[in-house]
Formats: sequence, C-alpha cells, structure tokens
Amino acid sequence: MSIRITGTGSYIPKSIEKNEDFKEHEFLNTDGSTFTQENDVIIEKFEAITGIGERRYADDNLTSSDLGYLAAEKAIEDAKIDRETIDYIICAHNFGDVKHNTIQSDILPCLASRVKYSLRIKNPKCVAYDILFGCPGWVEGMIQAQAFIKAGMAKRCLVIGSETLSRVVDKHDRDSMIYSDGAGATIVEASDEDGGILSHETASFTYDEAYYLYFGKSNNQELCADTRYIKMDGRKIYEFALKHVPLAMKNCLENSGKDIKDLKKIFIHQANEKMDEAILKRFYKLYKTEIPEGVMPMSIQKFGNSSVATVPTLFDLVKNNKVEDQEINKGDIIMFASVGAGMHINAIVYQY
Amino acid sequence: MSIRITGTGSYIPKSIEKNEDFKEHEFLNTDGSTFTQENDVIIEKFEAITGIGERRYADDNLTSSDLGYLAAEKAIEDAKIDRETIDYIICAHNFGDVKHNTIQSDILPCLASRVKYSLRIKNPKCVAYDILFGCPGWVEGMIQAQAFIKAGMAKRCLVIGSETLSRVVDKHDRDSMIYSDGAGATIVEASDEDGGILSHETASFTYDEAYYLYFGKSNNQELCADTRYIKMDGRKIYEFALKHVPLAMKNCLENSGKDIKDLKKIFIHQANEKMDEAILKRFYKLYKTEIPEGVMPMSIQKFGNSSVATVPTLFDLVKNNKVEDQEINKGDIIMFASVGAGMHINAIVYQY
Repeated sequence: MSIRITGTGSYIPKSIEKNEDFKEHEFLNTDGSTFTQENDVIIEKFEAITGIGERRYADDNLTSSDLGYLAAEKAIEDAKIDRETIDYIICAHNFGDVKHNTIQSDILPCLASRVKYSLRIKNPKCVAYDILFGCPGWVEGMIQAQAFIKAGMAKRCLVIGSETLSRVVDKHDRDSMIYSDGAGATIVEASDEDGGILSHETASFTYDEAYYLYFGKSNNQELCADTRYIKMDGRKIYEFALKHVPLAMKNCLENSGKDIKDLKKIFIHQANEKMDEAILKRFYKLYKTEIPEGVMPMSIQKFGNSSVATVPTLFDLVKNNKVEDQEINKGDIIMFASVGAGMHINAIVYQY
Repeated sequence: MSIRITGTGSYIPKSIEKNEDFKEHEFLNTDGSTFTQENDVIIEKFEAITGIGERRYADDNLTSSDLGYLAAEKAIEDAKIDRETIDYIICAHNFGDVKHNTIQSDILPCLASRVKYSLRIKNPKCVAYDILFGCPGWVEGMIQAQAFIKAGMAKRCLVIGSETLSRVVDKHDRDSMIYSDGAGATIVEASDEDGGILSHETASFTYDEAYYLYFGKSNNQELCADTRYIKMDGRKIYEFALKHVPLAMKNCLENSGKDIKDLKKIFIHQANEKMDEAILKRFYKLYKTEIPEGVMPMSIQKFGNSSVATVPTLFDLVKNNKVEDQEINKGDIIMFASVGAGMHINAIVYQY
C-alpha cells in the first residue's frame, strides 16, 4: 500500500495589494521611533530581501474557512471522488476566522467543521478537526493523514491549509508587507500504485525558539496595548532556519532511500525568497552537489507569504503548469518542506 | 502491543466562583429583553438542571497553556518518565490563551509549543501541536496518539486538555454560569501489558449542527457587536446529544468486544448533569439493562464545565480516590465519552 495525493486545489484571492500600496503607511521601529529612510527605500529593500512584489488579500466578506472551503471544492473535483467517502478533514491554520475589521479569532466551531458544513457532507464518520502547527501546518496535516491511513483508521483524507494573515497585521510594522491570504487543499489516500509518501520528518524547537513568532502589540505605542498582531524576530528566524531546515531535509531524504540526484523539485514554505535560496544552498552543500536549475519553484513574488497555504498552493500551481518553466512528471521524486511558528520544521519526500 | 495510560495529572484552579456570586449579574434574553424572574429564581433553576453549584476560575496571571503545563507536570511525575522521551505533545483547547481582561485568543505559537517550552524539554523530535475539536478534544487527542503509536511514529505521548472558559463568557447570558477553567493531562504509551485502549469511535455532525455552539455577540445589545463570546443553543444540543451520544457509546463498546455488564465506569464530558443522566439512561436502555450504581462519577457540582478538561480531570481524581464512593481497579473496563462544539462526539473503551 502507498499513500498518494489524488487531487489538489487552491484558492488565490483576486485582490492584489502591491508594494506601492504601502507607500503611505507610517512604519515604525518596535520602540515606536520613526525610520530615517523614506518609505520608497524601505519598500525597495524589502523587495530585494523577500522577493515579494505583491500579495493577495481575501475579499472583505470571506474568512479563512471560506478560503479553505473554496480550495477543498477544487481538490475534490480534481480527485474525482465522492465527497461522502472522505474519512478525515484536517484543517491547518494559525488564527482561525478573523472577520474583516475585527480583532478576534473565531475558532468555535473549528474551521474543519465549517468547511465540512460548506461542502454539504452528510457522513458523520468524516472526522473534522483543526491542527495548529505554525506555517508547517499543512505538511503536518499530511503526516497525520498518513498516520491515520497506516493505523487503519482512514482511507481517504482532505488536508487543507488556509490563512488570512491580512487580518492580523500591524500596519506600523514593515513585516506587514510579507503577509498574504490564501488556501491550498489536497486529497490524500491509500493506493495500490507505487510511490506516494516515502518518508517524513518533523521537529519542534521550543527550548529557546518558542516565541520567535508571536502575537504582540503594535509598533505604534499610541494604539491599544491589548490589541495584538502577528510579530516576528526575523533575524533569529533566519539564522534558525538556515541552521536546522537543511538538516531536516537531509534526514528526510535519507529516510526515503533516494539519492540527492533523484530529487526533481522542492516545494518549500515561502516566507522570504533570500532565506529559501540560502536554505537551498546549504542543503545542496551538505551533499557537495550543484543546485539543479529550477529545482525550487517560487511564487512568493506574486503571492507573498500565506503561511500554511504556500506549499499546497504552489504544488497545485506547478502540477497544473501554471508556473513558468516548471513541471512535474509521473515518477518524479519531490520534497515538501516547511518552517514556522512554534518553531516547527517538517518535510515529506514524495514520489509523484 | 497495547496502548496504555501510564500517568495522569490535573490542575484545578483555586478560585471558587459560587452561584451566589452571579446574583448581581444583569441576565438578559438573546434579544436583549429582561427576565420576569428574579436572579435568585434563575440561579435556582440553573442549579436544578445543570447540577452546578460552583465552578473554578483561573488566577488572573495564568492562561490556558499555563494550566495545561501545570497538569502536564503532574502527569509526567505520575508516570515516572524522563520527559525527554516524549514523542508527541498534543494540546486540546477551544480558545487558546486569552489573557485576563482582553478579548483576543492568542494561538501563536500553538499552546503545545508553550507547554513544551515551560516543561523545558529540549528534544526537538518531541512534536508539539494543538488540536481544535470542541469539548471532545482531549478524547480525540488520545485517539490521535493511538494512531501515531499504531503507525510506528511514536511510543509515548502527552495529551492535554486545557481551557479558560471564564475569559470568553458573556456576563449577560445565563449560560455563563456553566463555564469553568481547568486542565487535565495524560501520558499514553505503547506497552507490553494487556488492556489499554480497546476501541474508539468518533463522529463529526456538521450538516445541520455545525453552529449549535458558536462565537456570538452579547445578549446586551448596547455592548460592541464585534466582541464575541461563547454561545450555545442549549435546547438543540440537548436533543442532539440524547439522540446520538448513546449510539456512539454503544458502537464503541461493541467494537471493544466487551459486554455492557463488564463496563465499570463511564467518564463522560460534564456539560450538564441532567443531560448526562439522560444520556446514561438511554445508553443502558439500548441494552435493556439497569444502570449500575455509581457507574458515572461526576464532579460538575463543584467544578462546572471546563470543556476539554472535564474528562481527564475527573479520571485523574477518581484514579487518585478523590471522588467520594468512587474507585477504579486494575483490569476494570471503563469508557471515556464526550460531545461538544463542531458538533463532535467520541468515545474510547479502555481496560485499566
């Protein structure tokens, strides 16, 4: 028995927020002081480091679970399955449903219940739960689906990563330009075919790292100190990721029994283009091997960092030939990898 | 191989909120209108139905993850294990960390990461994630731990249910008297002994039921409509639970291969004493069997409804002979069962 992805779908919001849309923002340091640089310079530097030129924001009337539902409909259609045969709906996110212009996360009921409701699935044996695991939530949801299938508790799972980071950004923080909204979904199931998930790797670094990403107050000290936003210590995250992600990817590849030369594509969480490129460089350095051209497809330039949604969305796009000069073919060895709040790191080696 | 609970712990806040402490509350109907009855009468009726005489509220300086950590420390001590050997920390909750006198749920990082941080566990291979699954979250966490162990992905897991419902109640809603704070934790692991988890059952009813419990506005229409609180449609939940919970419990018992006469204790989620008694009655009626005296230990009278924490806390108390006229003995067949927001139902049959 193998465990294979039989359908993918994604929902990319239509509303584009360009870098120039941030020109009038009042960016502040964490201590509330102003920058000596003009916004034009700040934005230019930001784009040079992160690679992000624009990002997508969900329509005001939609929440994270709506985005997840829209991606799930496409994955179900792509897999050509009867939705009543799904055993698990696993929904990964980090902030729940945050309505436009409100500050509360709504996670009651859990988002998976909302998605199942919207999908109009009747079968009560379809178990719907949410996983909170930082940006690596969708990859971890896939690993949990694998566990249920291996344990004989499921045959077919729907795994969703959905997020509306635009609802939790501090406008006075330059990092607000990183965050984006979106959702990706996959159907994963037991199969008689070869391939599928070959190995996985997960780690949670909390001893020093638990609060590298956190929910904190605005850089504008005149705003309510009790209202909190997504915050990160970018430098520490960068150093942490460079140190630990390449090793986790290597462990995962070794456990799959495949060679570095077999690896055709790496679908990595896109938080920052320069960071991903540095991770890739270190990863191949561990094997003393040249980086193959085009091995790491990217969409961060247009879609920003949509947290749990980046990996399944990018995979869906490449699979459907929607990323220039990128394709995957039957039998290809690929890797999913992610790092984020927790701090969690994970990876899956998969034969397409 | 069996899968057994080798340690339990709970944290019950010291601060007691008595029914009489609600005497001065301004209770309102959902449409904002006042009740014709005096608060004395409302509170008396409330106690007659729910059985709740008092409940516990966490100290102002503690959050849900703190409670979870305190329960986890006791479970680790009880199991006499090296904390560095834990493969998974699974934390169930419904509202994350809500600081006293604030309205935002803080779930970044996930609460399991915070607990692991507080436990000072170094091992990065200890995977820490949160599950959102309504009140049945702790029972479902146990079922997921079982999956990881069966799939060969773990040997030892820490499963926590922690909640501070006092931070999300609407003071103008009579139902606010139901809710309580607390945490329970268990160590569950692969064992060579007989017994342990014999069967499980899970169901998610969302088609009509997804929003029976929800995050809604205050009954006081003068308060900010954007600030939301835990809300429920009590009548619908009561009817739903009576219809579906006894059947789920019966399925679970049948799958365990054990007879109704073997069942020594039922540890059920305590949301409402009358509802639990009605569920028990229907369950035994399905077997045309008398209800054995003392089969369903209760602590709701003193501890209210602490959501995900009720089942593991009650189990910990009975195991440690802290509930009058209640005990469990080696070899006893027991059941854990829960129902809550989602709407989710689950059960585990376990040989102690």
